[in-house]
Amino acid sequence: MSSARVDYIAPWWTYWLHNFPHINLRLQPVDSSFQPEEENYQQSLIFLGCVAAAGLGLNLLCLAKPNSCCVTWSAVAAGLITCIAVGVGFYGNSETNDGVYQLTYSLYNANHTLGGVDSLVGGTSASMRSGLHQHLARLDEIFATRGDYVQTLQFMQQMADNVIKQLLGLPDWQEAKVDLASIADQTANVEYYRWLTYLLLLILDLIICLLACLGLAKQSRWLLTTRFLFTPPFWFQGTSDFCVSPDKFVMSKTKGVIGSDIVHYYLYCNQTLSNPFQQPLTIFQRSLTTMQIQIQGLLQFAVPLFPTAERDLLGIQHLLNSSEAGLHQLTALLDCRGLNKDYLDAMVGVCYDGVEGVLYLCLFSTMASCAFTVMLCAIPRAWRQIASRERDYDDIDEEDPFNPRARRIASPNPNLANMHSFC
Amino acid sequence: MSSARVDYIAPWWTYWLHNFPHINLRLQPVDSSFQPEEENYQQSLIFLGCVAAAGLGLNLLCLAKPNSCCVTWSAVAAGLITCIAVGVGFYGNSETNDGVYQLTYSLYNANHTLGGVDSLVGGTSASMRSGLHQHLARLDEIFATRGDYVQTLQFMQQMADNVIKQLLGLPDWQEAKVDLASIADQTANVEYYRWLTYLLLLILDLIICLLACLGLAKQSRWLLTTRFLFTPPFWFQGTSDFCVSPDKFVMSKTKGVIGSDIVHYYLYCNQTLSNPFQQPLTIFQRSLTTMQIQIQGLLQFAVPLFPTAERDLLGIQHLLNSSEAGLHQLTALLDCRGLNKDYLDAMVGVCYDGVEGVLYLCLFSTMASCAFTVMLCAIPRAWRQIASRERDYDDIDEEDPFNPRARRIASPNPNLANMHSFC
Repeated sequence: MSSARVDYIAPWWTYWLHNFPHINLRLQPVDSSFQPEEENYQQSLIFLGCVAAAGLGLNLLCLAKPNSCCVTWSAVAAGLITCIAVGVGFYGNSETNDGVYQLTYSLYNANHTLGGVDSLVGGTSASMRSGLHQHLARLDEIFATRGDYVQTLQFMQQMADNVIKQLLGLPDWQEAKVDLASIADQTANVEYYRWLTYLLLLILDLIICLLACLGLAKQSRWLLTTRFLFTPPFWFQGTSDFCVSPDKFVMSKTKGVIGSDIVHYYLYCNQTLSNPFQQPLTIFQRSLTTMQIQIQGLLQFAVPLFPTAERDLLGIQHLLNSSEAGLHQLTALLDCRGLNKDYLDAMVGVCYDGVEGVLYLCLFSTMASCAFTVMLCAIPRAWRQIASRERDYDDIDEEDPFNPRARRIASPNPNLANMHSFC
Repeated sequence: MSSARVDYIAPWWTYWLHNFPHINLRLQPVDSSFQPEEENYQQSLIFLGCVAAAGLGLNLLCLAKPNSCCVTWSAVAAGLITCIAVGVGFYGNSETNDGVYQLTYSLYNANHTLGGVDSLVGGTSASMRSGLHQHLARLDEIFATRGDYVQTLQFMQQMADNVIKQLLGLPDWQEAKVDLASIADQTANVEYYRWLTYLLLLILDLIICLLACLGLAKQSRWLLTTRFLFTPPFWFQGTSDFCVSPDKFVMSKTKGVIGSDIVHYYLYCNQTLSNPFQQPLTIFQRSLTTMQIQIQGLLQFAVPLFPTAERDLLGIQHLLNSSEAGLHQLTALLDCRGLNKDYLDAMVGVCYDGVEGVLYLCLFSTMASCAFTVMLCAIPRAWRQIASRERDYDDIDEEDPFNPRARRIASPNPNLANMHSFC
C-alpha cells in the first residue's frame, strides 16, 4: 500500500460469500443485503445452519460404516491432516482475534473522540454560562454610571448566548457514545470466550489425535459436534453481507438519530465534502474574536477610569483564551479524519482479518472433521492388524519353529499381506 | 483494554532484553540505551552476533559427533519438535509481519497528515497572495475616489500579509515528510523480502524434515547456517533498546530540526500540554474574521455607490470562506491526536507484535536447530537398524530355515535388542 488514506474496499472473499444464494426456509431466494431485522434474511442464515448440520450428520453416518480401503496409510494421512488442520486452526483463531481486537480498539477510540467532544461542549458551555455571567454581572455594577460600557457588556452577553446556542446546536453524541461503548464491551467479552473456547478445542483436538494414534479414543463423535457448534456458518455469511456495503447499513441505522449529511461526512471524509459543523464553529470563533476585541477596548479605555474592573476584565480574557483553545480541540475532534480512520480500521479488522480468520477456522473444522472420521475408522483396524502381525511372528517361534516359510505360504493371512504392502 | 487513548508502555520482554548486559568487543560493559551512531553500542550488538555465531559453531560440532543414546525415539522426538518449531516459526513470521505492517501503515498515515498540512499551508498562502491581491488591486481602481474605502483595502492587505506570515511561521514538514516516506518504503521493502525468505525457509525446513525422516538428507549443515543468518540477534536487541524509551530517541533525532516543544506536544499529547500552534492559528482566524467584517461593511455601504465592485467583493468573501474551511482542516491536522495515535500505533506494532514475532522466530530457530542436529545424527542410525532387522528376518528364512530361535540365541544382535525395546 503506497498511501495510508485509502477508501475501504471489501475483500474478494466477502463478495464471494455474499453472492452465495440466500434461501429462506420456504426455499425461496431472498435479497442478500445485510438486514439483520428482516425475517426472510434471518431465515436464510438459519437455512445455511441447517445445511451445515446436515453435513455434520452425514459425517457422523460415515463414522458408522468404516470403509475397507488401505488402513495404515489412511491413518497416517489422517493424522498428518489433523496436525495441519490444527495449525490452520491456531492461525485462524489468532487472525480472528486480531480482527476483533482491531474493531473494539477502533470503537473505544471513536468513543473517546465522542467523549472528548461532549466534555468540551459541556465545559465550554458551563464556563460561558456561569463564569462569564459572574464577571459580567460584577462589571455591570462597576460600570453602572457609563451607559456605553454597559451596552458593550450587554453585547458581550448576547455573544456568549450565541456561542452557547451554537454549542447546543451540535449533535448530542451521548446516545451514540453509550451504544459504541456497550457494543465494544460486548464484542470484547464474546470474543474473549470465543478465542478461549477455540484454543481449548484446538488443544483438545491435538490430545484426541494423540490418543487416537495410540488407539485409545474410539468414539469421539461429540468432538465433531462441539467443533460444529463453534463455527456457525451463518456468522460469517452475515458478516460478509455486512462487509460488502457497511456504509448502507450504518446510514440506515443512524437514520433519524443523526443527520444524514453528518453520517455521510464521516463515512466518506474527503476534501470535496464540506464540514457540516463549519458554520457553528465559525460563528463560535467569530463571537470569541469579537468579544476579545471588546475586552481589549475596555481594558484600554475603561480600566484607567475604573481600576477595580481590571480583575474581572482579565478574568474574561483568560476565559476567552481557554475557550479558544477548547475551540481548536473541538475543531480537531469534529473533523472527519479521526472518526473516519476509526471506521476504516474497524472495517478492515472485521472484514479482512476477522472474516479471513473465520474462513481458516472453517477450513480447520472441515479438514479436522474429515481426518477424524477417517482416523476413528482406520486406527482401531490398524492396531488390530499390528496385533495380529505380532501374533503371527510369535506363532513362528512357538508353534512351528522349524518351518516358518512353509506356514506363511500355507495359510496366507490377508491382514499380513496388507501389512507387508502397506496397502 | 477499557479505553483506547493510553500511553505507550514498553512490553516486559523489551525490558528483559534491554537489561541483558551490553558488552563491547574489548569486553567492557557499555551503556544499553539505544544509540545506533555510538561506536561502543554498535560493538555491543556485534558482540551479541559473535556469541550467536559461536552457538552455531557448537551446534555444527555436535553434528560431527553423534552420541550413542536411544536412536529411534530421539528421531521421533526430533521430528515432532521440528514440526512444532515450524508452527511457531509460521506464527512468529506472521506476527512480525503484522507489526512491521502496522509501523509502515502508521508512517504512511503520519506522512499523509504532514502532506495535508503542507498542501493546506501552500494553497492558502497562494490564494491569499495572488487571488486576494488581484481582487484588491481591481477594487483599488474602482474605489480610487473614496479615501476611506482605499484605507480599508490597505488594512485588508496588511491582514492578508499577516496571515501569510503566520502560515510561513509554521514548521516546514517537507524534510520530515520525505524522511518518513523513505523510511516507510524501505521498511516495507525489507520486510517483504524478510517475510518471503522466512516463509521459504520454513517450507524448506518442512521438506528437509520430511526428507530426513526418509533418510535422504544426511548433510544439511548449510540449513542451520542459513537460518542463523536470517535471525540476527542484534536486530531484536537493538529494537528492544529502542522500545524501552523511544521518546528519548525521537527527541534526540529531531533536535535542531523541529522545536522541542512541538516534538513534546506530539509525543505526549495530553490535555494539559498547550498547542504550540495555537497562537498562529488564532491570529489566522482573527485576521479572517476581521476581513470578513470589513467585506460585509463594504458590501453594505460601497456597493450601492460602486455596483461594479460587487463581483470582486463577493470573490474576496468566497476566498475568505474557503480559507476558513482550510483553517479548520489545518487545526485538525496540527492537533496532536492524529500524529500521536500514529506514533503509538507504530510503537505498539514494532515493540509488541514485531519484537514478539522475532522472539518466536528465535525460539523456532533454536528448537529447529537442536531438533535437526539430533535428527541428522539419529535417523541414518535408525534406518541402519531397521535395515539390519529386515536382514535378520531374511536370514531366518534363507540361511537357517529350521532353527531361527537357536540362531538368535547363538548370536545376540545388539541392534535387534535395541529394536525390540525401542530403547
